[in-house]
Amino acid sequence: MALTPCPSTLHSANSALNLNQDDFLYHFGLSKTSVDLEKLFGDVKLIHYAKATDVTFIRLGTSGGVGVNPGSVVVTSAPVNGELKEEHVQFIAGKKVSREARLDKRLQQDLIAMGEELSLPVVSGKTLCADDFYEGQMRLDGYFCDYSSTDKFAFLRELHDKGVRNIEMESTCFSSFTCRAGIPAAIVCVTLLNRMDGDQVTLTKEDYLEFETRPYKLVTAFIRQQLSL
Amino acid sequence: MALTPCPSTLHSANSALNLNQDDFLYHFGLSKTSVDLEKLFGDVKLIHYAKATDVTFIRLGTSGGVGVNPGSVVVTSAPVNGELKEEHVQFIAGKKVSREARLDKRLQQDLIAMGEELSLPVVSGKTLCADDFYEGQMRLDGYFCDYSSTDKFAFLRELHDKGVRNIEMESTCFSSFTCRAGIPAAIVCVTLLNRMDGDQVTLTKEDYLEFETRPYKLVTAFIRQQLSL
Repeated sequence: MALTPCPSTLHSANSALNLNQDDFLYHFGLSKTSVDLEKLFGDVKLIHYAKATDVTFIRLGTSGGVGVNPGSVVVTSAPVNGELKEEHVQFIAGKKVSREARLDKRLQQDLIAMGEELSLPVVSGKTLCADDFYEGQMRLDGYFCDYSSTDKFAFLRELHDKGVRNIEMESTCFSSFTCRAGIPAAIVCVTLLNRMDGDQVTLTKEDYLEFETRPYKLVTAFIRQQLSL
Repeated sequence: MALTPCPSTLHSANSALNLNQDDFLYHFGLSKTSVDLEKLFGDVKLIHYAKATDVTFIRLGTSGGVGVNPGSVVVTSAPVNGELKEEHVQFIAGKKVSREARLDKRLQQDLIAMGEELSLPVVSGKTLCADDFYEGQMRLDGYFCDYSSTDKFAFLRELHDKGVRNIEMESTCFSSFTCRAGIPAAIVCVTLLNRMDGDQVTLTKEDYLEFETRPYKLVTAFIRQQLSL
């Protein structure tokens, strides 16, 4: 299937937006005319209204590791969907549309270099974007489990062999959206467990809290560097 | 494709759960042994641990209407996914699994009868379960919009002709899960707008708040009736 290619520059992708007198952004509870959007910053429509330029998006979060120690900071090289394709699938007007889900290579390299400078356990690898927490990630501890422990480990090994180092649930959607909008983007997620060792997060509270801050430490340092602060 | 059929009774679907000494329910922040789960009630694993019987699940929420007035209370007859099939698609170990997404007919009839008794504008109809808020629902006010207003209305008319009366984003997942677990389930969502008239919610705050309570009024009355309160 031919993928919809990503543009190289940020643009207003829906000309109808400029014709609307007002636009109520339902999920934010604000509208284009009731708030000074040039002072705000948020989703891509907001950025368009705010007339922001030279924008970069970075997703930060937690994830399950695949063959890496808990606490590893994975900078995603490429996200893969449930079919292990570097795509995000949408259904529009009843038809399947597959979109390229590509992240910015230069940004990845810069983030990895910054992680190393900070002595964080930074790793480059693909990220599996699962659609659910249990079966989509081959966990054995869900309400339903029609596969065996052997099936689970065979899948995790297949993922590892293909270069996957962590699993979360947002990466292909995020990457295809930013890629399509021409926004350089990256994904930085810490791992809370090594799925090769189990399915439950068994960290101490102290480790959990410290691990959770690692992507923020990395990205904060990167932003300060970019802004020469 | 052959669908995985739904069982008729509630059962423990993962025998491995009974072997685990403990089970930390990550999304709830509690574990099987640290909390008296027989006094609690939540997801299907919780219900299993709580030894609850004769369980019914009802999803309540808001939605976009298709050819019905804002404020209509839609009791879903069947959910359809982005391909307009009465299925929920999962990817397990890299393979596509399509599961039947079926709701309980008797429960629907009882809820509609209760809605009529309460003089609520209750409607029976199919529900489109979209994967996103904008393109998956053919909105014209998203950041991206590659289709025309004509395409949008053609799709909404197609939906209406097929019996769809509202659009939300949870119904196929919910229905396939409950159906697979043998739990009778229903979906009751109020509509906040008629998508045939526009894409933005333009209700007054008073109407919004009153509409939002309608599914709760209906389901509360139904529960009281069932429990002979």
